[in-house]
Amino acid sequence: MIVLGSTGSIGVNTLNIARKFNLNIEVLVAGNNIELLNKQIEEFKPKRVVVANKENVHKVNHFNVGFAESDILKAIEESESKTVVNALVGFLGLRPTLKAIECGKKIALANKESLVAAGKFIDQSQLSPIDSEHFGLWYLRQEKKISSMTITASGGSFRDYPLEKLANVSIKEALNHPNWSMGNKITIDSATMTNKLFELVEAAWLFDTRKVDAIIETKSLIHALINFEDGSTTAHIANASMQLPIAYAILGKCDEKILKPIDLLEVGSLEFRKIDSKRYPIWQIKEELLKNLDLGVILNAANEVAVNKFLNGKIGFLDIPKISLEAIEKFSSLKAKTIEDIFEIDKEVRAFCGY
Amino acid sequence: MIVLGSTGSIGVNTLNIARKFNLNIEVLVAGNNIELLNKQIEEFKPKRVVVANKENVHKVNHFNVGFAESDILKAIEESESKTVVNALVGFLGLRPTLKAIECGKKIALANKESLVAAGKFIDQSQLSPIDSEHFGLWYLRQEKKISSMTITASGGSFRDYPLEKLANVSIKEALNHPNWSMGNKITIDSATMTNKLFELVEAAWLFDTRKVDAIIETKSLIHALINFEDGSTTAHIANASMQLPIAYAILGKCDEKILKPIDLLEVGSLEFRKIDSKRYPIWQIKEELLKNLDLGVILNAANEVAVNKFLNGKIGFLDIPKISLEAIEKFSSLKAKTIEDIFEIDKEVRAFCGY
Repeated sequence: MIVLGSTGSIGVNTLNIARKFNLNIEVLVAGNNIELLNKQIEEFKPKRVVVANKENVHKVNHFNVGFAESDILKAIEESESKTVVNALVGFLGLRPTLKAIECGKKIALANKESLVAAGKFIDQSQLSPIDSEHFGLWYLRQEKKISSMTITASGGSFRDYPLEKLANVSIKEALNHPNWSMGNKITIDSATMTNKLFELVEAAWLFDTRKVDAIIETKSLIHALINFEDGSTTAHIANASMQLPIAYAILGKCDEKILKPIDLLEVGSLEFRKIDSKRYPIWQIKEELLKNLDLGVILNAANEVAVNKFLNGKIGFLDIPKISLEAIEKFSSLKAKTIEDIFEIDKEVRAFCGY
Repeated sequence: MIVLGSTGSIGVNTLNIARKFNLNIEVLVAGNNIELLNKQIEEFKPKRVVVANKENVHKVNHFNVGFAESDILKAIEESESKTVVNALVGFLGLRPTLKAIECGKKIALANKESLVAAGKFIDQSQLSPIDSEHFGLWYLRQEKKISSMTITASGGSFRDYPLEKLANVSIKEALNHPNWSMGNKITIDSATMTNKLFELVEAAWLFDTRKVDAIIETKSLIHALINFEDGSTTAHIANASMQLPIAYAILGKCDEKILKPIDLLEVGSLEFRKIDSKRYPIWQIKEELLKNLDLGVILNAANEVAVNKFLNGKIGFLDIPKISLEAIEKFSSLKAKTIEDIFEIDKEVRAFCGY
């Protein structure tokens, strides 16, 4: 298989699953963590490697190293693998997703931006989401009449932070997620709750529904709930590790032990909270977004620019949702008619937000 | 259909479902609440009625009224109905269960004593349990490798009561269940945790497993959990009402609204606790019981005698498990070889416990 983003948290977990089930790795694609990439090359012996930047190519211990998006797309096109794990971060994951689909490959998708930005152009027939919430929803579905779906949020780094101090939090504080160990981008998206909006959009595409909402479950043990017409609710519960959704997305099914089971006596209690627009200003566009999934590409582009600026110390934490909300207001009437429109809108929004 | 125990809490809920789905009621069987029975007769117009005691027959507004076990069995045998709802309380529900099976009827079984006492002689091919926990387990099962099952307990009337005062609780206190409104017998069984032992035995028979355990969930909203080999756990969550398991047991499937769905934001939090043998002395035989399901009939007989004595003010609350534990110790080597042995053992244990 092909692993895009092999040195990130999803990539590492994917290789853990590959090790456990003795799966063949044909291509590794990584960013700038060349040290870890070289260890992965030694262990998994891929035929081909691609890194983000040209200046790192000579540091990679492999005879066939490419760089940048064009080489990622070429690696997908020329591979024999049937499965692509796309754990790239951000909008740049979209073209590899499209390429993998074009090449008829099974895609295990952790790059949620692909669906958020371009859901209506994504053929899902060969796609499995790598996301604990959507995995939970998939896991729970039975041949019963579903009323609605609920996914959970941890509440992120500032769930319990004084509201009046949110404008002045440090980058370090923002990167300190309570439950999950993840990359920087998604950790910030989790702190602003934008990540959960993305997941609602994903769920809307994946399960062809608009009746999906989110609540905070502070321990990140319940990942998803399905509400049935009869009044029953079912829940998927598991320790906070991506190995389970990854195993299913790659293997299709799995009856082996992947995670330590939850011990509810050890857990002791669970707590549920409302997602409040005061703490998470981006949450105010939830309804609008679910009614108009075309906003996904706008929200994603503005948010990528804003998170980048925040991580570079150029704006404050509360400016992140502000920039996104402004972009949504400015561009809300845009509707992509083709996949190329998506790339155009993405560019236009980025230009508006100041890159 | 035939409703055994129509004036009890399960019976009333069964008739609520019958009203909602316009189901025909052929036979009503009730105990001593003749006033309610007469109202039920007026609404559902059964062809035949049976009451527990001869002296009540003349008070029943119906042209065809029988009394006692023999008439219950006859009513089942001579009926055209395909379904029997058995909501009788205690060991006296066993013969009607056997009769219904013998007559090839579908049995919706709330009388848990049938399985506890005689599980190995019960043909389950036409049987659906009416119990929120087993309904939850059934609801959750998918074609996946199950590792173990967990059912929940409320902890009963004395969950938070000072341990040292348990010996002297009043009957009224014992009947004050925190979450469920149920008959007297099961409310006491819930306070002693014997009810949960019964449910473990039931689950062992119903799901052909011994890997089943129970924990306390104080709000009785999560009813059952299944632990899968992969490390996932799934949960069935619903408001505390028997109408859901009843609807499924009667209708087979159900995609209509039966209960108000759970609002976890309103719930706020959930708490899990260990079932402690200090508070629930009967819990100390859990392992032994699951290893030897033949103990079910002994536990049930001793417990019925003990609960009866407690409700008549003859013994203290902690004497209930004491009597059961003594009976288990005395008779633990007995193994029924035929269904008639079950009735013999039941008699012998009752005699030992002083009726």
